[in-house]
This record gives sequence, structure tokens and C-alpha cells, in this order.
Amino acid sequence: MAAISPLSEAERSAALQDLPQWTYDKDNKGIARSFAFGNFVEAFGFMSSVALLAEKADHHPEWSNVYNRVEILLTTHDAGGLSERDIALAKQIDALI
Amino acid sequence: MAAISPLSEAERSAALQDLPQWTYDKDNKGIARSFAFGNFVEAFGFMSSVALLAEKADHHPEWSNVYNRVEILLTTHDAGGLSERDIALAKQIDALI
Repeated sequence: MAAISPLSEAERSAALQDLPQWTYDKDNKGIARSFAFGNFVEAFGFMSSVALLAEKADHHPEWSNVYNRVEILLTTHDAGGLSERDIALAKQIDALI
Repeated sequence: MAAISPLSEAERSAALQDLPQWTYDKDNKGIARSFAFGNFVEAFGFMSSVALLAEKADHHPEWSNVYNRVEILLTTHDAGGLSERDIALAKQIDALI
């Protein structure tokens, strides 16, 4: 996939207006959101949906799971920070919930 | 599920003889292993298999994934440390590889 530029601070602020449950993680130069489900089956079902979206977009999350909780960080290593790809995937993930 | 006792140090050492690729994580009172795959599809395919085994055993990993890498920590909160359940699940996970 072609190289991609990181979002400017203004672009990031604008993009996060549409993603109120995501927060900018300065240290990891990405956006993060925590999800809680009723149990592991629901959490992993959600992860499976995210995995399909991620693979289709060729853009993959950094994420962890403990039982009913899922933590997702989206960043774009090729851009050295947050990019449009992260925003697009975050919107697709939010649409799952 | 009934309460379960943590393994003694001797039991843990004996159990880890059969799990040479797992290391005891003292801070998290569990055993950890890192897995690397060819790509995300393979990594998530592996995670899906682990998820089914975990749900069947009613014992779930603490784990994370970044693209082709999967990190798994197994510990038993009900036991306050490592238990037979972790050893059993680790063996099932190893059998997937």
C-alpha cells in the first residue's frame, strides 16, 4: 500500500469529533477505545468482526482482550502516527456496536 | 466453577517441563508465550482456535495481537496465580501449532 501522511493536529481534532468514544493516545500516536461486553463469546465475536474489517482494509489494530473487555489502538506505522486509515477503521468498528 | 488452588513452586516447575516455550511471569503470576505467524490472517486464525478452546474450558487468556504476533498470558484469578487450568490450556494451545 502506498505511503500515507499523518493527520495534522487540526485534521485529527476534526476527525475525532465524529469519534467521541475514541481518545488520542499521544505516546502511541494513535487513537484508543475500550469496549466491554457481556462475556467472552460476545467480546470475541466482536473481535472476529473487527478482524474481517481490518483484513479487508489491509489495516490492522493493536489490541488486547481480557474476558469481556477489548482494548483497541489504531495507528499507522507507515505514516508515523494517526492517519485517515485509522479514522476510517474506527468508524467501521463503531458501526459494529 | 469451583475455587481452585494455585500450583506450588515445585508443581509449577514440573508442569513447565512439558511447556518449554512458556515462561513464568512472576509479576502477573502466570505463564506467557509469544507466537509469530506469517501474517494477520494466520495470527487471527490461531486466535479463533484458542478462543474456542478457552470458551470450552471456561478459562480465558489475557492476550494481545499486533499484525502477525500474538502474546498470551495464562493465569487463574480464582486461584490468585497459576493453576492446573492454565497448564491444561497451554498444552491445548501448543497442540494447535
